[in-house]
Amino acid sequence: MTDPTDALRGPVEVVGAGLLGTSIGLALRRAGIETVLRDVSEEHLRTASGLGAGRVAAAGDVPSLVVVAVPPDHLADTVVDALRRTPGVVTDVGSIKSAPGRRVAAEAPDLEHRYVGGHPMAGSERSGPLAASAALFDGRPWAVTPHETSDAAAVAAVEELARVCGAVPVLMEPDEHDRAVARTSHLPHLLAVLVAGRLAHAPESHLALSGQGVRDVTRVAAGDPALWQQIVTLNAEALHGLLAEVREELDVLQRAVTTGDRTVLGDLLARGVEGTRAIPGKHGGPATVTRSVFVSVPDHPGELARLFADAGESGVNIEDVHIDHDPGRPVGLVELVVSEDRAEHLLSSLESRDWVTHR
Amino acid sequence: MTDPTDALRGPVEVVGAGLLGTSIGLALRRAGIETVLRDVSEEHLRTASGLGAGRVAAAGDVPSLVVVAVPPDHLADTVVDALRRTPGVVTDVGSIKSAPGRRVAAEAPDLEHRYVGGHPMAGSERSGPLAASAALFDGRPWAVTPHETSDAAAVAAVEELARVCGAVPVLMEPDEHDRAVARTSHLPHLLAVLVAGRLAHAPESHLALSGQGVRDVTRVAAGDPALWQQIVTLNAEALHGLLAEVREELDVLQRAVTTGDRTVLGDLLARGVEGTRAIPGKHGGPATVTRSVFVSVPDHPGELARLFADAGESGVNIEDVHIDHDPGRPVGLVELVVSEDRAEHLLSSLESRDWVTHR
Repeated sequence: MTDPTDALRGPVEVVGAGLLGTSIGLALRRAGIETVLRDVSEEHLRTASGLGAGRVAAAGDVPSLVVVAVPPDHLADTVVDALRRTPGVVTDVGSIKSAPGRRVAAEAPDLEHRYVGGHPMAGSERSGPLAASAALFDGRPWAVTPHETSDAAAVAAVEELARVCGAVPVLMEPDEHDRAVARTSHLPHLLAVLVAGRLAHAPESHLALSGQGVRDVTRVAAGDPALWQQIVTLNAEALHGLLAEVREELDVLQRAVTTGDRTVLGDLLARGVEGTRAIPGKHGGPATVTRSVFVSVPDHPGELARLFADAGESGVNIEDVHIDHDPGRPVGLVELVVSEDRAEHLLSSLESRDWVTHR
Repeated sequence: MTDPTDALRGPVEVVGAGLLGTSIGLALRRAGIETVLRDVSEEHLRTASGLGAGRVAAAGDVPSLVVVAVPPDHLADTVVDALRRTPGVVTDVGSIKSAPGRRVAAEAPDLEHRYVGGHPMAGSERSGPLAASAALFDGRPWAVTPHETSDAAAVAAVEELARVCGAVPVLMEPDEHDRAVARTSHLPHLLAVLVAGRLAHAPESHLALSGQGVRDVTRVAAGDPALWQQIVTLNAEALHGLLAEVREELDVLQRAVTTGDRTVLGDLLARGVEGTRAIPGKHGGPATVTRSVFVSVPDHPGELARLFADAGESGVNIEDVHIDHDPGRPVGLVELVVSEDRAEHLLSSLESRDWVTHR
């Protein structure tokens, strides 16, 4: 019924022209695949098609593949509707896979073999078509989550979609996916929210001592509550066990703090260190050992350029950059993160060009 | 007994030649103030003095000011010893102020008027004298925490020390300081540890879906357990109430997730958003509204330099930079964080120079 090589012949229909849908449209167009767009919002449609993410879907279109990119609450209904409207493969890009998949199975048991869930692990703090980018998925994992009755050809088609968008397909069962994101995304989000909650209405004198640590821990807590409400309730099952573990460990922690039990605290803290080391390198590769090189940089627009030009001359690839400066002060501190075995070379290279480095 | 204008005439004695002590030595030497160093580790002493942080203390030295920069557990004893050994002002740079202060008062009630606590809010993931920098404190808040019997002249001397090191002195009572850092540093650290703990021994398939969010939330959890054990137990009192609040809110959260109560979840999530907005701009200034500009950059050393040169030409000051690239792929995504009202100008300026931007 579905031909794997045919699913991407086009047109591919993208339902929902937000950040993810528009980015998929842009990536498909980049690959020369005809793309048609649907959205309840006329404005999103106009913007997305204006950006080059595809044309607005017309009555006679028969899509070879439908990608559903709507909020979690509307996911199952929109997938079922697409299965009924069109003859090809249907996939989606929602953050939760199990509960919507069960609803699709219940409502369209004769069609669900053409449905395969998907979830690209790409940024979500920005939203709407204007934040979209053809490069959003480049090098990112894209979970592909077939259920028991999914056609093998449909699975292959969704893996191919991920690859065409520049991502790396990662096959997983829907339940396993939901447990994975509960651990690596939803739980971190909820605990960041609890930390951030302690800052709302905090005394100004407390907030004045905020450093980079609390900024990093709480950054994700700025995410859209309406979206996270949906994500969290739809993934309640997977979150339940993790929240119970945290609750139990929080009790242990609280007791250890109160009684000053350093052995217990040391164990908890050491396990945290171990956890940070378990996170693989970006894009799933092995973690590279990096070292930070600190450089004082006068706070003029041209100085950063001069620094990067000089760093470029050294031939050392810069993995990451952090700038710490106060707009009111003349000198900022720039942290260049480089592979550990290149740090000394970069330092001496910059020093020979009269940069003030801090080892 | 203590002359405020005299406390920084030197020599200033720094006890503990780790990251903070050596950085203070470097900053004092930068200001032309004679500095002498003490440390139980001969190697740290040699390294710190070799870096130019001061000379090794000799028997006949009479310091005008002593700065104690030793681990929290040894703080009180070292401060008391310094008060007994020397005639001038004694301060410290420990993360907790109340408990050590009480011990100083109990053990040296006749001398404690010459002691004033301090705490520069400066980076601590690196450690040891080799990580030190004269610029470490530039523009950072430096809490100065006099107790009831501190001499006004001693307080003025410690504020002057902070300023000489490039920091901004922030006067606070010791208890208030401890409550502030419990909220903005110790609690975030402990909850990051609980999140990271869920990653240790997690299935590889779960870890494969790690995105930037979980990396940011857990970064601080990589900190030294031996140090954090001390910090957490010494600040148990201030942490107690916050942990109880989190525990209570976690119960509410858990119930809301289980029952699917979106109103309660929405309130919690919204409060988290509010908390992230309460954090002031870096260095205590008002938070600036920023916007991120995303640019695709080929992964060669010279390309970042070209980007910053072109960004520099636009005259827009860059507040922060994030690079997201996989060393194995040809193109990375660079995020330039700029003041919101300058973002459009930067975008069109970069686009006119043929950069691929993503709005």
